[in-house]
Amino acid sequence: MRLLLSGHGASRGSALGRAHLRLPHVLDVAEQHITQDQIAEQLQRLHAAIAATRDEMHALRQRLHGALAKEVGEFLDLHALLLDDPELLQGLDQLIQAGRYSADYALRLQRDRLAAVFEGMDDPYLKSRMDDLDHVIGRIHLHLHQRAVETQGVAGQILVTDNVAPSELAQLQSQGVVAVVTSAGSTLSHSAILARSLHMPLVVGAAHALQRINDGDVLSVDGASGALIVNPDPSDLRAYQLRLREAEREERELGRLRSKPSRTLDGSDIALYANAESLDDVARAHVLGAAGLGLYRTEFLFLQRNQPPDEEEQFQTYRDVILGMNGRPVTIRTLDLGSDKVDRSGLTLPHEGNPALGVRGVRLSLAHAPVFETQLRAILRASDYGPVRILVPMVSSREEIIAVRRCLKKVAAQLREQGHPVAQRLPLGAMIEVPAAAIGMAGFIGLVDFVSVGTNDLVQYLLAADRNNEALGELYSPLHPGVLRLLAHVIRLGAEHGKSVSVCGEIAGDPRLVPLLLALGLTEFSLHPATLLEVRRCIRASHLQQLRDNAGKLLQARSRSGIERWLKRNSA
Amino acid sequence: MRLLLSGHGASRGSALGRAHLRLPHVLDVAEQHITQDQIAEQLQRLHAAIAATRDEMHALRQRLHGALAKEVGEFLDLHALLLDDPELLQGLDQLIQAGRYSADYALRLQRDRLAAVFEGMDDPYLKSRMDDLDHVIGRIHLHLHQRAVETQGVAGQILVTDNVAPSELAQLQSQGVVAVVTSAGSTLSHSAILARSLHMPLVVGAAHALQRINDGDVLSVDGASGALIVNPDPSDLRAYQLRLREAEREERELGRLRSKPSRTLDGSDIALYANAESLDDVARAHVLGAAGLGLYRTEFLFLQRNQPPDEEEQFQTYRDVILGMNGRPVTIRTLDLGSDKVDRSGLTLPHEGNPALGVRGVRLSLAHAPVFETQLRAILRASDYGPVRILVPMVSSREEIIAVRRCLKKVAAQLREQGHPVAQRLPLGAMIEVPAAAIGMAGFIGLVDFVSVGTNDLVQYLLAADRNNEALGELYSPLHPGVLRLLAHVIRLGAEHGKSVSVCGEIAGDPRLVPLLLALGLTEFSLHPATLLEVRRCIRASHLQQLRDNAGKLLQARSRSGIERWLKRNSA
Repeated sequence: MRLLLSGHGASRGSALGRAHLRLPHVLDVAEQHITQDQIAEQLQRLHAAIAATRDEMHALRQRLHGALAKEVGEFLDLHALLLDDPELLQGLDQLIQAGRYSADYALRLQRDRLAAVFEGMDDPYLKSRMDDLDHVIGRIHLHLHQRAVETQGVAGQILVTDNVAPSELAQLQSQGVVAVVTSAGSTLSHSAILARSLHMPLVVGAAHALQRINDGDVLSVDGASGALIVNPDPSDLRAYQLRLREAEREERELGRLRSKPSRTLDGSDIALYANAESLDDVARAHVLGAAGLGLYRTEFLFLQRNQPPDEEEQFQTYRDVILGMNGRPVTIRTLDLGSDKVDRSGLTLPHEGNPALGVRGVRLSLAHAPVFETQLRAILRASDYGPVRILVPMVSSREEIIAVRRCLKKVAAQLREQGHPVAQRLPLGAMIEVPAAAIGMAGFIGLVDFVSVGTNDLVQYLLAADRNNEALGELYSPLHPGVLRLLAHVIRLGAEHGKSVSVCGEIAGDPRLVPLLLALGLTEFSLHPATLLEVRRCIRASHLQQLRDNAGKLLQARSRSGIERWLKRNSA
Repeated sequence: MRLLLSGHGASRGSALGRAHLRLPHVLDVAEQHITQDQIAEQLQRLHAAIAATRDEMHALRQRLHGALAKEVGEFLDLHALLLDDPELLQGLDQLIQAGRYSADYALRLQRDRLAAVFEGMDDPYLKSRMDDLDHVIGRIHLHLHQRAVETQGVAGQILVTDNVAPSELAQLQSQGVVAVVTSAGSTLSHSAILARSLHMPLVVGAAHALQRINDGDVLSVDGASGALIVNPDPSDLRAYQLRLREAEREERELGRLRSKPSRTLDGSDIALYANAESLDDVARAHVLGAAGLGLYRTEFLFLQRNQPPDEEEQFQTYRDVILGMNGRPVTIRTLDLGSDKVDRSGLTLPHEGNPALGVRGVRLSLAHAPVFETQLRAILRASDYGPVRILVPMVSSREEIIAVRRCLKKVAAQLREQGHPVAQRLPLGAMIEVPAAAIGMAGFIGLVDFVSVGTNDLVQYLLAADRNNEALGELYSPLHPGVLRLLAHVIRLGAEHGKSVSVCGEIAGDPRLVPLLLALGLTEFSLHPATLLEVRRCIRASHLQQLRDNAGKLLQARSRSGIERWLKRNSA
């Protein structure tokens, strides 16, 4: 019977497929004892399952690239660490050897033991670690029963579940799942953001989906509106086909924009740079006609290893990126690690109560001079292969810029002494993400060649709202009068001092916000290649002077809804 | 033999006394087995020690009041929670009953077990929890040997140790310790801040103190310069007496300021309000001639209990404070809880990765409407007894103020219906501590009657620097050009709209910063009573118009050192 359900559209796109229900996972295993001669077999089963889990996570990690590697990778890294946890592994072995339990039951007992320790400690943070552990134990459990296959064979299906973890989405897509529907979740969650960059249709908050949809039901999903149709009738199918054709037409139209300039209706050229992390991103940036790389992240070189990478490895990586951009400028951001990243290199600090307000970015680099100097040496050497700019994250003061310049000077002198050709002077820029640096930018703008506004962190600090804290709901939003005023201030100050200002946070890649950024005077965007063409299309449909003339009204908005009204009035 | 040592002066004041060395604590107990018939006795010993520890901590908690209750209380609350931890307690009982270990050895074994679990989990946060557990276990251990007396009989002594915990300082002072010298530590640590508000001389970073000073040596400590003299000679003693007399003279001189106005040399009156939390603070504020309470904190009513306080309890508390101020205005801040506080009421969220950027202040209140409405009802009822203003913490937007006004209106209507007399309209103010609210203040200033700048949090967000993270060194500082510009903006905007602006963070209580705040146009300070007279003295020595004339130069400073130079030039 045809049935209409609805949730919140979290990632647009249409999909038609059979529903695959996944009910909330419970590790429910009965007590199973084994005999002395079964011990070896059970140990072998257990370790095979752990190895399979490790391989599975490793394979998944390898398949990730670009922004995805950064976002999903952190979850996977954490889970991989737990797999190597001696407390977990030794406990399991002992339960099988001394306790004579089956591998399945040992897994359950060990899980319950650790859970009891966590529960007993009455500490909220521990409980969140338990969720991660449960995820890992659940994966091992599946492998014990060789049920890793369970999630295979789902190609063309639509996953209906209570919630989906960010780390699952890429895997689901690679297995051919065409859309995901969850009964819980928010359109602002990390999973929703990921689904959008994966172009995977996602509907969240479909409250009764798990009760009303049966495994195998045909389901039509509209990721834009959040509408779900169970057992669609012929007219629903026609509507679906129509939406598909519309999307294809749009895709083709976007494709044509690859070779077009990012020029407004009134003839102003806007520079669209790409954010990149992998050679794959670099290739896409090149193909899409990006003006260069506005933000090349280097953290991936440092994560998942016990020692920071050496100069040679960094040099080769940077050189290949520079060669890949074929003469267009490459902006290399120096290491932006903090204790919120899972880092084994020993650079980050433990014990930070608020990692987002801790020792990260340039603070960390200046505290580890040898590591920082190695990175600068590698960048300087690579700069022989094409135009390079250096971008320093988390700058908060003039003093830090002076310290960075001092390091750069020292390293350049060393390299020249050692006979390496070094460019006379590379452009040095500051990421503007610390609010005090944005407000007090006049104090150090003279010491840098350019600035790049990292709105993701800037907004988080300005609103005192952790962008990964879902309980904050819509509090984390760039559409706040204070945020816009500060952005306008930074852009104006840059122009007054003749210094280039770009924005490299997510707002630069959101086509809906193009009119707003243009009105504030921005002429350089740096964004993930995924939405570069859409942003270009919006720019080409915008009238720059008109928008700038309306900037005054935008800056007078007193609330988010005022800003949204302005956007509605000023969108092409 | 006379010996000169030096450290960093962390809390000024002079002291002369016998050194009492406390070497780093190690819980080193040999393996001790017991017989069946000793079990009951060992269990009794253990539980008596735990009860004694609980009593000791409870007694300490009771003695705390004012800002101290807030600062030290959190540590004590956490430790008290650990004492009730079933994992810890049951494990201990089992080790004695089933393992036949002495209470001492059981304590050590259980400590090592938990430590192994924590170590094994490879999680930095867990390790910090282990430090807390060690502190608690150490206290129980002392009580097992009835060595709680150990730290008594130290009256008149100077404690020399490796490090001192914030939670110890108040206890040490109440036992009569006259000064503390530590070999490690920083002048910016939490302990240093506490020592200053306790007026307890403290020298930190005296590297070789533990090696060079013997138990019982006579020691002269200068908490201002950090100088230590072991076995002082007659001329040292004369110098010490001189410093003491100088300090007494200063004390007397300050005392005379109690009844003097806070008036600048050129005749402008500055309003000095007090920050308060207890009736004791209220009494001090009254005696010192504070203009009223600029910030009355209400968190203490909610902490350390399983249920929020009811309306009647809150009403009586607020009423007594209002009566205590005898007609001077009382600014009651609504609940400012967050997940960084140890809270058993179930209001705060677990799992927050960055509590400082989480659900706290008005965000929490708006998420728990019944709790918020109860507090507002209690405040409205209490307002019959004297002038009251309501201050809302962590405001970030116009929308939040509107939501608060809506609650207030609803509650006032209810009260009138129920026959309670309610003042026509209480002044409602916003704490300005979220940077976006400060920058975008024009968007909601029309909706509030006054604002109070909470610089402690504001600076933390502006600099993206957790003020409790010692690894950030001096990065957390209000002396940043961006901070001063924003303060100037808020003060100017308030004046333009005819709304009163006060500053209630620690900078308002720092006499050295008086010229800076006056230059920026501030006319209302709200500060802890401890430094009220010193701040008044600085105001009385300041020439307001001169300072304001020099504000331009202050706002042009490009770095911290520039601001410090301005301060040096403009201090009376």
